[in-house]
Amino acid sequence: MPLVRLTIAYDGADYHGWQRQEGLRTIQGEIERALRELTGEATVVEGAGRTDAGVHALAQVAAFTTTSSIAPERFAPALNARLPADIRARESRLAPEGFHPRFSARGKTYLYRVRTGSQPPLFDRRFVHHHRGALDLAAMRAGAAALVGAHDFRAFTPAQQPKEETVRTVRSIRLFEHPWGGEPATGRPVATAHLLVTGEGFLWNMVRIIAGTLLDVGRGRTPPGEVADILSSRDRRRAGPTLPARGLFLARVYY
Amino acid sequence: MPLVRLTIAYDGADYHGWQRQEGLRTIQGEIERALRELTGEATVVEGAGRTDAGVHALAQVAAFTTTSSIAPERFAPALNARLPADIRARESRLAPEGFHPRFSARGKTYLYRVRTGSQPPLFDRRFVHHHRGALDLAAMRAGAAALVGAHDFRAFTPAQQPKEETVRTVRSIRLFEHPWGGEPATGRPVATAHLLVTGEGFLWNMVRIIAGTLLDVGRGRTPPGEVADILSSRDRRRAGPTLPARGLFLARVYY
Repeated sequence: MPLVRLTIAYDGADYHGWQRQEGLRTIQGEIERALRELTGEATVVEGAGRTDAGVHALAQVAAFTTTSSIAPERFAPALNARLPADIRARESRLAPEGFHPRFSARGKTYLYRVRTGSQPPLFDRRFVHHHRGALDLAAMRAGAAALVGAHDFRAFTPAQQPKEETVRTVRSIRLFEHPWGGEPATGRPVATAHLLVTGEGFLWNMVRIIAGTLLDVGRGRTPPGEVADILSSRDRRRAGPTLPARGLFLARVYY
Repeated sequence: MPLVRLTIAYDGADYHGWQRQEGLRTIQGEIERALRELTGEATVVEGAGRTDAGVHALAQVAAFTTTSSIAPERFAPALNARLPADIRARESRLAPEGFHPRFSARGKTYLYRVRTGSQPPLFDRRFVHHHRGALDLAAMRAGAAALVGAHDFRAFTPAQQPKEETVRTVRSIRLFEHPWGGEPATGRPVATAHLLVTGEGFLWNMVRIIAGTLLDVGRGRTPPGEVADILSSRDRRRAGPTLPARGLFLARVYY
């Protein structure tokens, strides 16, 4: 049976996350429903990342097997005709045998967006976290440097959580100002900080807590040099807040 | 009684337009409700432009009189605490005696946004009209030139409509590619054409029909030289389609 690989973007604001849940609107549930309508067969779709409620994706990767005679590259347009406007199939193609979107992934990049400025965003409000004051991006970069590498990220996941191993490898953290989503003509300067975290794997909420900790650095609450201490403390209470889902995007999956 | 001038931005996608209508969600209705909650008095808010259902505003101007002792510049933040997230008061200040947002206006600029590209927009889908093919912006500019000046715009308003005088003065039409709302990381080039129409007054649907006519020029259906003939025909059937509300913004009001 052909194995089809899908690249999907979505606005997660109105979903209870990726994972299928009985009676709730989820990304996986919507895609499986659309596939069932399309092929007539019940199909399980595996995703590379099980994004939480409200989290978005620029390029989630998923895969499914099918007995359908539809050519693999035709699934994307056919699904788009059956998916709601806030989920879009970007591309579909035949996957190599044994491909698994999660287990085959060598790494992922998450994007966290923070808008600064006196007024909260209007048109972009579903896709960005708002911070009223200015941010010192240089300080945030200095703080971020302590997180790059293989570390025990126990301080960066909910305290009750980890039964599992909490060592993860962060390959890079990049931070820059990005014009995307600037709101024109309000007469006020708008800046959007884009935090890109690339790693081999992530703990639950890890990117949102990294973003919250670096936001504390950027606003002057936490000295950049303290990030290394927070990391080595392995104490969730030392790290910053879990920032809201609306600013988070699964940006890319590497194979 | 103090006369207060408000500048307002809104995402009109979930509203039945500006104008108060019993039992329907409208921008004027929401602002009047918020003012009543704030001051305890029933207040009529006049707007510069009565935007249709689904139309947005970057800087709508409105005004109201009040007996409240709230300082004029405090109304914007106080209203924002009582308005939904898709309506934002940008600024409030004392207006000069006799100021009327509509009758005092010397002109307005409307913005119409068209996204080109093979795939419909995802994150920006509420704020742009999608056109699959490429657009010839130079041809559109050439066509637009015929519309600048004082003309009878009867061909650019619904045929059943005009009892009223249909001569209007368009001061300028500008068209350019704008990065606002570009969608990153999908691997596909994205272009957004911004059409800015400035005039002393507008007929109902005039900007959306101008945009539809120029889109026909941009896609090669209508030669640029034919726009002058469409205008002088005074025949609605000769002009292009009325483009959807979602791409339209009241961008600025001049006093």
